[in-house]
Formats: sequence, C-alpha cells, structure tokens
Amino acid sequence: TDVKKIAVIAGDGIGPEVVAEAERVLKRTEEVFGYRFETEHALFGGIAIDEKGTPLPEETLSVCKSADAVLLGAVGGPKWDNNSKELRPETGLLGIRKALGLFSNLRPAVVFDCLKDASTLKPEVLEGTDLMVVRELTGGIYFGEKFRREGSQGEEAVDTCVYNVTEVERIVRQAFEIAQGRRKKLASVDKANVLETSRLWREVVNRVAPEYPDVEVEHVLVDNCAMQLLRRPASFDVIVTENMFGDILSDEAAMLTGSIGMLASASLGEGSFGLYEPVHGSAPDIAGQGLANPIATILSVALMFRTTFGYAEGADAIEAAVSEVLNAGHRTSDIAVDKSKAISTTEMGDLIVAAI
Amino acid sequence: TDVKKIAVIAGDGIGPEVVAEAERVLKRTEEVFGYRFETEHALFGGIAIDEKGTPLPEETLSVCKSADAVLLGAVGGPKWDNNSKELRPETGLLGIRKALGLFSNLRPAVVFDCLKDASTLKPEVLEGTDLMVVRELTGGIYFGEKFRREGSQGEEAVDTCVYNVTEVERIVRQAFEIAQGRRKKLASVDKANVLETSRLWREVVNRVAPEYPDVEVEHVLVDNCAMQLLRRPASFDVIVTENMFGDILSDEAAMLTGSIGMLASASLGEGSFGLYEPVHGSAPDIAGQGLANPIATILSVALMFRTTFGYAEGADAIEAAVSEVLNAGHRTSDIAVDKSKAISTTEMGDLIVAAI
Ligand SMILES: CC(C)[C@H](C(=O)O)[C@@H](O)C(=O)O
Ligand SMILES: CC(C)[C@H](C(=O)O)[C@@H](O)C(=O)O
Repeated sequence: TDVKKIAVIAGDGIGPEVVAEAERVLKRTEEVFGYRFETEHALFGGIAIDEKGTPLPEETLSVCKSADAVLLGAVGGPKWDNNSKELRPETGLLGIRKALGLFSNLRPAVVFDCLKDASTLKPEVLEGTDLMVVRELTGGIYFGEKFRREGSQGEEAVDTCVYNVTEVERIVRQAFEIAQGRRKKLASVDKANVLETSRLWREVVNRVAPEYPDVEVEHVLVDNCAMQLLRRPASFDVIVTENMFGDILSDEAAMLTGSIGMLASASLGEGSFGLYEPVHGSAPDIAGQGLANPIATILSVALMFRTTFGYAEGADAIEAAVSEVLNAGHRTSDIAVDKSKAISTTEMGDLIVAAI
Repeated sequence: TDVKKIAVIAGDGIGPEVVAEAERVLKRTEEVFGYRFETEHALFGGIAIDEKGTPLPEETLSVCKSADAVLLGAVGGPKWDNNSKELRPETGLLGIRKALGLFSNLRPAVVFDCLKDASTLKPEVLEGTDLMVVRELTGGIYFGEKFRREGSQGEEAVDTCVYNVTEVERIVRQAFEIAQGRRKKLASVDKANVLETSRLWREVVNRVAPEYPDVEVEHVLVDNCAMQLLRRPASFDVIVTENMFGDILSDEAAMLTGSIGMLASASLGEGSFGLYEPVHGSAPDIAGQGLANPIATILSVALMFRTTFGYAEGADAIEAAVSEVLNAGHRTSDIAVDKSKAISTTEMGDLIVAAI
C-alpha cells in the first residue's frame, strides 16, 4: 500500500493526551491491516502562540497542505482568552479552515447505548437518535467584513454575513449526497423569514432538490429547529445549515445525545482531504492528569479512514474495538458512573489498541 | 381609577380564540378589582394582509401608539408563507417592534409543576428551572442592511449585523435591573471569539457591571449556552443577548421547560409601554376548533398588569386562578395526558374567570 501522510496537531489542554492514544491506534492498524502512515507533528493554537508568536504558523499550514489528512486534538484555553484577536487560538482555527478550503463540517450526533443515561433527555425521547449536522464552514458572518465605526449613537460594530450561490450550492449538494447514503431525509435550516442570505440559501435548496428525488427535504427555521431538536431528535437525519446556525445547533445536538465526549467530526473541502477532530474542547481544567477520554479522537481516526482513505476495514475495526471496550464496562472518569472505577486515558488507549 | 387603554390584536390562527378568553379575564378583573380598561381591536398580520393589503396598517400602528399596552394573540400561517417580503406577517412583526421602539423582549421560561412530565428533559435536571431570556429586539442582523448583488462567484446575498453602544447599553442595563429583582445572576451570551458586534457587546457588559455589584455576571459563548441550557437549565437566572441569538436560545429555553403552551412574553421600550403575547405561535392546524390553550395569553395579561400598569394584586389573582384550575386537574388537549378528558378553550376560560 501507498504511504498516507497525516499532519498531527496535538494542540492545547487535553489535546496532546488524546492525540497520543489516537496515534497508537494508527500504529496498531499498520500492524493489523498493513496500512502505512507517515505522521508529521505541527504546532497550532495556544502552544503555537507561545512558541511561535502566532496561532497558525506558516510551517503548520505547509505540513497540513502536503498531508492527505489532518488529525487535530483541541485548541484554546483561558491562558489566551484575553489576547488580542491575532493572538487567539480561535483565529488560528478560522485561518486553517479558510486556508485549507474546508467548507464543510460534518458533526454526527449519535447516542452511545452505554451512555444513554448520561443525557439530560429522557431515554424514550432519545431512542434512535442518529443525526448529522452538515455545517457550512468558510462563509457567512464568520468571514464577512467586520469593523468599528463612529455612528450617531456612539461607537458601533459591524459584522457582515455574505453567501454566494456557489458556496451554498456545494454544501447543499454534499448534504443531499450524505442524506442519500443515510435515511434520505434532509432538514435545511435557515431564517428565511428575516435574512436575505437565508432566502438565497432556500432558493438554492429548492433548485437542486429535484436532482435528489429520493431525498425528502424540509425547510426548518432556526428557532424552530432549536426546539425540534429537543422535542423529536430521532426524527432528524441530515441537517444542513450555514456557519453560525451550524455552530449553535451542532453543539445543541451533540449535547442532547449525552455522548459529547465520544463524538468525532470531519471538516472537508473539495476532494478527499479532510481535517478530523473530536467535538469536545481542550478541557484545560483536566489537562495533564490522565483523566481525558481519548475515544472521540480515536473515532476521528476511524472517520478519517472511512472518509479520506477509503479504509473501511480499518474504520470498522476501530469502531468495533471501541464498542467492545465500552461493552466490557470500561470507562474514563467523564463517562464513569462509579468514578472510583474509572480508568486513565492511556489505559483506555491500551484496551482499544488491544481490541483491534 | 384611571382608564387604561389596551390595543387588542387578535391576529391569525388560534389568535382570536385565545385573545377572546384573555379579554374575559380583563373584564373579570374590572369587576373584582375596580380596574377600568378601554380595549380597541386592530388588524395585524395575515388577516391585515387579506383585508388591508399590508401586515401592519397605519390605523393599527396608531391604535397601538395611543394605547398604554398592546395584547397580541399570534400571527402568521401557511397561507401567507410564500408571499413576497412586504406581504408577510413576519414583516409586520418586525415593523411593529421597530415602530413602537420595543427594544427588549422578555421571555420567561419556567416549569409548571403540573407539566413537568411534558418536558423531554429528565425531571431531576429540570428541577428548579426558572430563567428569563432578555433578548435585544430592534437591532442586529434583523434590521441591518440586506441586499443581493452580483459577485465573482454568482449572485450573492448580504445581511448586515450592526450594534451601537447605546443600543447595547440600554438592554444590558435592563437585564442587570431584572437580575437584581430575581436571583442576581446574569449570563451575557455572545460570540466574542468571532464577531465584532459581540466584542462590543462584551465591552459594554464589562463596563457597566461594576454599577451592579450585587449581580454575578458570566460571559457565555452562544454555542456553549445552547449546550448549557440542556445540561444545567436550573443554574441560569437572567440571560441577556442580541436579537438573533435571543431568538434561538429563547425558543430552546421555552421548549425545554415543557411548558411552551403556557409561557407569556413582554416586549418593552422606554417607559412603561409594552406589548404582551404568548410565546407559542398561531397553530393554524388547530385554529377554530376550540382546542387552543388560552393560558399563555391569559398569563400575558398578568404580565401586562405587573409590568405596565403596576397592578400587582390583579396579576397575582390571575396567576393564582390559573394555578388553581390546573391543580384541580383541568387541561386543554395540548397539555392533557388523557385527551378524552380535555376541555375546550372557552371552558378553560370559564374556569379561570370563575376562579378570579
Ligand atoms: C472556537 C470557535 C471559533 C469555533 C467556531 O465557532 O467555529 C468552535 O466553536 C467550533 O464550533 O469549532
Ligand atoms: C416570526 C419571526 C420574525 C420572529 C423573530 O424571529 O423574531 C419570531 O420567531 C419571534 O421570535 O418572535
């Protein structure tokens, strides 16, 4: 087999710990399936600010660009929260998305059976919840012009939300295709009763929908979607929406599953290149203590295998190993009911590696 | 007592039915407490489009302007959903907010004990949930410039989000004052790691906070807030946020209480003038069948009494009557466990009127 190049960005907080376990999983799949990976580590986020004076150093970007995929831990922490905009980890995150053309963020929200009780929702409401938020990631109010100016009522701040048909069409088509590979239901979320960008969005969805006649489409207003996610989470299959709404709704969806420490995500551009990361954050409060749950990062590797490399066998094996270990009752402290029986980050890694 | 003028806007769908019961409650309080109300009905929303060719006729606006308060049922419905922007009920809603200077929308989300089970959240998570979303209502991306233009990638749509310090300061101060009258906790929600308007918002909150030393302030990012509302709803007291975030979060908060059919809301400007309406929509699917629950509208009258008129006694009496009727086991079909025992809109009105 050919060698796949993976840029590895450990990042901040628990990032390095969870990424280390994911790398052991990568190695294990080389032994078992004969894959060959070349990993290159790069600095990003807070640690890059500290060591290089910028959250997204040029070298990091070129390491990513020459790789087939990127594995990211997590970035950010209170240490950098009061920095000026250019010196904040989030600025690096927005920068890397734009520079790598990652216009699509896939955030699956599934319920892990063994974690059903961790959700604040009633189990009967959650039953069967398995949805995917497809969030537009390089447009909208995140990337539009932003500035301050003097107005007649004092200083004012402006953010601009812009979408063109090309941007909307590519993400919408991708969402339709994803829906075709799932339960064939697409909820397009917008605020078309107020926003011009939402009206454009809805027009594009309606124009391309006839090309996917097997997919059932509904338009849902964002405020209503925030409610329906709570009322009937299991009825959603694929949700496609713009950047800001996707940020809010994907976090709501992830949290309602109760499995947020276990969820992987992918950010994709044109072609097979992708950046993979856990949905959870850098959790600086528990960093360096061996308490972090590496499963979301390990499952991000499985997602990378399936989506970027087409390594279905390896992906299945990783997911099966995670299920096996969980079914055997092993838990890191975040998901342990009895905290005294919780195992450490590396112990969880050991068990999953051994199960592959 | 002096006569209070109330503009009554029944609106569309179930609006007329629920407003009729609220008017009977108004009458009843005249008898019991000697209040004097002069009500004037006005057309608004879909019905105004049908009868006057515009969702917000001039007469309606002047009826509202000459009143001390406005009682609104609900507007909108599928009939007008595909109309052009000028001929849509929502356009009337945005227009009336702006024309009456209603910059603040108060959306209390409380759990009614008898409805605890109606929530999709576990009762132990919901326990003690009693929060108030203070939403900025006349600024932000709702009212900024919106347009289409030709870009290099095809047609593009633009929405502009603008906030000036004066707008932010008045809503933030109001939220601090409301928090002082409650549990003295304020969560200010923004997306300061991405948006310039959010950075301005946060600066204003931090600048005025020292003037309310008894109020504990936390800044919460909007995506995190969408999660925390699910994880720890009872820990919130007052949430203050900008227009678009407030739209999404107030609906999420209302839905998680399980009591959405029972929640009242107020939209306020400078002074005591206010517009009061139920949080629920016009429910066209059940309109005209006597199935609607009038309680949210009746509680909107109580909120009007307390907030605009300073009629605490009447407000208490209405709320006590509602509790009494619910505690006696009476339910409209939306909240009935046994639907066959559900009572009608007017029967519910009768019982509440009799209990005052
Ligand atoms: C950190 C922040 C800029 C980022 C976003 O809003 O996109 C994060 O919330 C996410 O969802 O990846
Ligand atoms: C109908 C719509 C324009 C309105 C809004 O978004 O403000 C509604 O959702 C609300 O919350 O009152």
